[in-house]
Formats: sequence, structure tokens, C-alpha cells
Amino acid sequence: MSDREVTPDGAVDPGRGGLSRRTVLGAAGVGMGVGIAAGLAGGAALGATVGREDEPDRIVAFRGEHQAGIVTEAQDRLHFAAFDVITDSREALVDMLKKWTVAAERMTRGQETEPDGALGLGDYHPPADTGEALGLSPAHLTLTIGFGPGLFGPSASDPNRPDRFGIADRKPAALADLPAFAQEKIEASRSYGDICLQACADDPQVAVHAIRNLARIGVGIVSVRWSQLGFGRTSSTTRSQDTPRNMFGFKDGTANIRAEDTDTLDKWVWVAPEDNPPSAQWMTGGTYLVARRIRMDIEPWDRANLLEQENIIGRTKGSGAPLGKDGEFEEPDFQITSYGAPIIPATSHVRLAHPDQNGGAQILRRGYNFTDGSDGFGHLDAGLFFIAFNRDTFKQFVPIQHQLSRKDAMTEYLIPNGSANFAVPPGVEPGEYWGQRLFEK
Amino acid sequence: MSDREVTPDGAVDPGRGGLSRRTVLGAAGVGMGVGIAAGLAGGAALGATVGREDEPDRIVAFRGEHQAGIVTEAQDRLHFAAFDVITDSREALVDMLKKWTVAAERMTRGQETEPDGALGLGDYHPPADTGEALGLSPAHLTLTIGFGPGLFGPSASDPNRPDRFGIADRKPAALADLPAFAQEKIEASRSYGDICLQACADDPQVAVHAIRNLARIGVGIVSVRWSQLGFGRTSSTTRSQDTPRNMFGFKDGTANIRAEDTDTLDKWVWVAPEDNPPSAQWMTGGTYLVARRIRMDIEPWDRANLLEQENIIGRTKGSGAPLGKDGEFEEPDFQITSYGAPIIPATSHVRLAHPDQNGGAQILRRGYNFTDGSDGFGHLDAGLFFIAFNRDTFKQFVPIQHQLSRKDAMTEYLIPNGSANFAVPPGVEPGEYWGQRLFEK
Repeated sequence: MSDREVTPDGAVDPGRGGLSRRTVLGAAGVGMGVGIAAGLAGGAALGATVGREDEPDRIVAFRGEHQAGIVTEAQDRLHFAAFDVITDSREALVDMLKKWTVAAERMTRGQETEPDGALGLGDYHPPADTGEALGLSPAHLTLTIGFGPGLFGPSASDPNRPDRFGIADRKPAALADLPAFAQEKIEASRSYGDICLQACADDPQVAVHAIRNLARIGVGIVSVRWSQLGFGRTSSTTRSQDTPRNMFGFKDGTANIRAEDTDTLDKWVWVAPEDNPPSAQWMTGGTYLVARRIRMDIEPWDRANLLEQENIIGRTKGSGAPLGKDGEFEEPDFQITSYGAPIIPATSHVRLAHPDQNGGAQILRRGYNFTDGSDGFGHLDAGLFFIAFNRDTFKQFVPIQHQLSRKDAMTEYLIPNGSANFAVPPGVEPGEYWGQRLFEK
Repeated sequence: MSDREVTPDGAVDPGRGGLSRRTVLGAAGVGMGVGIAAGLAGGAALGATVGREDEPDRIVAFRGEHQAGIVTEAQDRLHFAAFDVITDSREALVDMLKKWTVAAERMTRGQETEPDGALGLGDYHPPADTGEALGLSPAHLTLTIGFGPGLFGPSASDPNRPDRFGIADRKPAALADLPAFAQEKIEASRSYGDICLQACADDPQVAVHAIRNLARIGVGIVSVRWSQLGFGRTSSTTRSQDTPRNMFGFKDGTANIRAEDTDTLDKWVWVAPEDNPPSAQWMTGGTYLVARRIRMDIEPWDRANLLEQENIIGRTKGSGAPLGKDGEFEEPDFQITSYGAPIIPATSHVRLAHPDQNGGAQILRRGYNFTDGSDGFGHLDAGLFFIAFNRDTFKQFVPIQHQLSRKDAMTEYLIPNGSANFAVPPGVEPGEYWGQRLFEK
């Protein structure tokens, strides 16, 4: 089997990086009549951190200084899952993390979870890959792991939890459940979790396949607590690189931090050595992931007039320009007034979320739209699955969110009902497994 | 506004057929710096019935002998919604259907629900288009309408419903709620409905936008009863035209009816004059849509060995060939035995669903995979949203499904929990609105 040369520690012949699931399947000789790799230009993609620019093989590098899926250009689709760890065995948990790392890296290359996993283990074995991604491209799959407060013992959402894995002293400074905010209706069944996995890909089937197989590998060790599908980047069906629109119909992400802004990322996203005591240095180079399931009250929103909508956002709906400006990427000017009142209202989202109103604090956002059927009352259950990365959730996201939840006119149309904060460790280097620096003191 | 020349009856200058939302927006002068249509080759696409072959403008014709979205090559994504009609006013219902038709046809062209709808109605009006599809391509959007039994008065799921709209005598012969099948767990909140809308597009945001805006236009007349998102065709991220795989990891749709098989479609899909009395001739050229939400018990499935999986399906997992054959598209041979037993087991899905076992009956399938978060017990809520079109649900789908639900080994892994049957009227001709032949006697 041509695919077996991939070693468990993730070392891989760069020439093989471009092998698609199709090729793997073809090489297995199952009669699909295909067997030639479309292209082997994977070397460059494997070396890139940000990735994505028209790699013919659609592979984003799994290993690097930071995890992929954070500053990686947003893929079209999301499958996010939070897990409860249901074992008390540190050994079993570490063993699963090792298996997850191997499978995750393989899947980001478009390979099965293990060589020949779907078809080649023989008739009398359950397949080691569930098979629904056979023949699909890697689709820029990224898999990003995070650890929740409960993994380290007691947390706000579960104050009596023991320190099952002997890592309470290694809990990083900014890892705790989020506080309560005004106007939210948090449901425990959509919140918290010991481990999170963020799967992003241009194909939903690839993202779902990845989460499903990692859940399968983790059976008996972890249990899916909640999961969320998202969409909205749509780059596969439009040639534009426009800022995507949220379910309010407005562009969302205009003023986000860019992957090229490495100084800004260092200041506001990546955890630095001075952020933690020696026992939590494993987080250096990592970040914190805040997840918020924000249902939008879209039917009342759709009855609001255009002026009200734009005053709530603080931007025009068409171009996305700040009110009083012409271009989407112009800086908002909060001093402009009209008839004595600020043209960007004091209660507008863009003003209240702006760094100038938050001591300069910025966060890196990576939200996806969702529609999850209906609510039983004749309305669509739709909104924004908000994901943000920041260097210290309690110095960045939390104060911004307190300000927004109390003053932002948009909160009238929002029902946040899911909430979580995870410590996202740095990237894995060759030979490392997810969480190795946490568990191996 | 350059876009106003589209008349309410759907007549359109072919040169305008290719106008994308982007162009419309650009023409509105909102400062996006775009304004030139990418291509105006829409004429051919507008004339096609099946559509989709690399039209540069990604438009599938809305009008024709049959509705689009039935034999149209399956797009990547689905948003399906079922509505309760909450008015007793025939006039109000007909008025909504007229508005829906105009908006639906516009959206399939990549336009807003009405000219200038998102941005041009003035500050003090709620926008007539919610805006989240601005800048996106038409993405091969198709919108397909169907009418449920309850629209015509009493039905199995609502036996006391009055004939609110005076159309009981026009109820077609094969329109009734599905009977109970073995092994199902139907939930009323995922089933039935007076009207259904199937939105298919290569971009989920385009499909969701369409359903959302039609629901918005119908406020006070209809209420969303249930809705379902689906995915799985993935043609946008793979160059292959492979048969897509379902969440069991098997190819699904190999033996489906093809759009080119017009004789088969006439025999098994399209309603003919002799199928109905004179009062229901409005259905001639239409079809019946069966929707089944089939949750798959994927965790137990993933623990079944490959042989068991293949014996349940009756095909190999890799190539999709019938057991005992080499190629996916070979006909299954139910006579081949091995050690005295049929190589395609008597309880296999492919055998029980095959026309030979069902008096020749065929159905046109158009299913999508779904993953709807988790079930609260540590499992993903994933499966197949099964859609099938047939000429007479009670002579085709129902007997096939009775056989499958009683004998198919796969039922052990299936939890059907949503069920519906809708009468899908024929296509609309220029000047017609959805349901006109039903409501105008």
C-alpha cells in the first residue's frame, strides 16, 4: 500500500503530501479506474503556515509554530464539536490524543484516518475510516484542538469536578468559563466542554467526516457534548474575495485582524511566555478560543427599516462603509455629527466593539453563519456561530462583551445561547502529539 | 434602476438573464466599485430544462414544462422548508403565491427578491430583501414548490381540518399523508406541512437566503413548520462526477433515474392525464415529493465490520459495484450464489429496493446528507434527508418502503423521524404563478 510510508510521528515524504483520497483509493486497487495523483505540488503547501493560495492539492499544513485554522484564511464550512472526557485515566486520554494527532494530520492531507482504513483491513474488521470522504479533495481541511477548564479540575460550570488527570497546576491563567453577560440565555447543552475540535474545510462532508472519525476513535474516552455546523464563506461559488455577509445581511469581518499583521497577532492573539507561570508555559504560542452560539432574531430584524439597521451596525448595508464614509475599509470617524448627534450612534455595534472604546483591545474573529432548522414557533433557528481567538479572554473578549451586552442596540435582536472558552495549545512540531507539552511535564 | 425591466410575469430580456446580484448592487451605486456583468450568456441557460452544464452565470431556468429542482443535476446544498398555512383567506394565499413566484424567479437569476429590494427602498422602509446574498452568484439555485394534503382539508395527520380554500374536490389521487411503516419514530414537528419549498444551490447561503426571504414574504400567511439543511454533492470542491457517498460511507444514487431517461421519467415520475379525474388535471406534468428525515445510527454502524456493511447494502464499499460484480454501474445479479447462499443477501438494501423486487417500480431520488449537531447522549445527529419524486406515491414509494421497513437489514441502523408527501405541480409557463392551475378553476 503506497500510503504506508507515513510514519506515526507525522514525518512524510513531501512528494506524498499531495496524495488525495482518490489516489489512495485508486492505489488500493478497488476497481475505480483511477490511480494517478492529480499533482504533487504539496511541498510548498506543507511548508506554509497561512496556506491556501491556489494550492492545486488543497492542503493546509497541519504542523507548525501555531495550529492551523486560526489565521488560516477562512474555509467555506465549519463543523465544531465539544467533548466531555468520560474517562479518569490519564493514560487512556493521552493515548487517544496520540491517535487523534495521527488521524487528524492524515485527514488534512486528504488521506484516510489510517492507511487502507476504509477498505483494506479485511472483511471481519470494522473499517478504521468511515469512508464518506473517499474520493473528495482535502478541501483545505484544518483541525484545531482546544482544552476546556473542566479538564483541569473544578470550573465555574462544574465546581465539584476532581483533578482527574493531575494537571490542575498546569491550568493557564486565562482559562476559565466565561462570566454571565447581560441579555444572554445560555443553555448548558450548547456550552462548555473538556475538549473542542474545530474542523474547517471548503466541503462540509470533509469537515463532518473529520469530526465524526475523531469522535469514533475517541469512543469510551470522550463523548460529544455539543456540535455545530456553520457556513458562509462561499468562496467556492463566487470569484470575489468580498467580506462575507452575516444573517443580518451585513458584511461581517471588515476590521478583523489579517494573517499578515504579525505584530498585531503577537500582541493580541498568541500567548507569550510572560502570560503564564512556569507550570503553564506549554501554552506559549497558543491562544484562547471563545465560542458563542448567537441566535439572531431574524424575523423582527427583517421588519426593521434600513436606517435602523444601519444605525445599529454603524455601517452601510451595501458597501459596508462606516457611516459617514464611502469605503468599506476606511476607519470609522466617531466624531462626525449630524444635527448635533454622532452619525455613528453611541449604541452602534461598530463603535462599541472598536478598539478605541476598549483600551485598544482586539480579537481575531472567525465566525460562521448557521441555520439549524426551525424553533417550533414558526421561525428559522439561524444566526452566527461566533468564534474568536485572543491572547487573554478575560482582558480582551470579556470586557468587550460586557460593554456590548449592556449597550449595543443589536442585543435586542440577539439570543446568545451557547458559550465556551478553550485553551488552544501551540502548533505541534514533527513527532509531537496534540497536548504533549501539557501532559508530559 | 437598470433592473426594473423584469416584468411581474417573468418575461425578461435575455440579455439581462445573466445579471448577478453583484451587478445589481453595482448598478445601485453603493460604491462597491463594480458594475459590469461578468457575462451575458444567460440565454442558453434560460432555455434549458435540465440546465447546469458550465453556464458561466450559474442560472437554472425557473420556468418550463416541469419545475426545476427535480431532474436538475443535484446541486451541492439543500434548504428544505415545510410551512403551515395560517390564514383562512384564499385571496391572501393566492396573493402570497403570486409574490413568491416573482421573488423566486428573481432569486434563481441571482437577483434580489424585488428590484433594489435590499438597499433601494429608502431609509424608512424595511428592506424587501434581507441582503445576505448580495454579491453571491446565482449558484444554480432552484426553488421547487409542493402542496400538502392538509391544504385540501382533512388529512390523516389532521382529520378535522376544514376545506379552508374550497379546493377539496381538486385534491389529486395520490396526495395523502404516508402510512405508518415498521421501525420508524415519526415526530410531528419534523413531518407534514401544507406547503413545501425545496431550495437547492451550490452555496448554502444562497439556498438559506431564498427560503428565509420567501418565509418573510409569507409572514401572516404561512409559518415555518420545520426545515432541514443538507449537503453532500460536493461538486464544487472535487472535479469528479463520482456518485456521492452517504453517511454510511457508501455511494448512494448509483441506480437512480437519469435526467436523460425521458421514457422512464414519463413512466415513473411525471403525472399523466389519466392519473387524475378532470378536477385534478392541474397536476398533469407534476409529480409527488416524498421527504423522509432518516437519522442514521452511525456509531453502531461504525462498529460493524466491512463484510456486514457490504452485505447490508449489497454493494462493495469501495467501488460501489453490486456484490459479485466489478463495476459500479453493472446490474446486480441476484442469482449468483456462494456456498449455496445468494451473494447479494435476501435482506440487502439493493435487492429489496430493486425494481425487480417491486413490480418494476422506480423512484427518482434526490437525497442530501445532514448533520444537525448532537443528540444530547454523546452522538452526532446525522443521516440522510431522503427526497424522492414519483408519479404515484402510493403505488411506488409506499410499497417499496413497506418492503424495506420490514425486511431490510439496514433498518437496524436507521431511525426515520420525519415524513411528508407533497403534490408538486408542473412547471410554470410565462405569466403563470405557482399554483395558478390549482386555484383558478
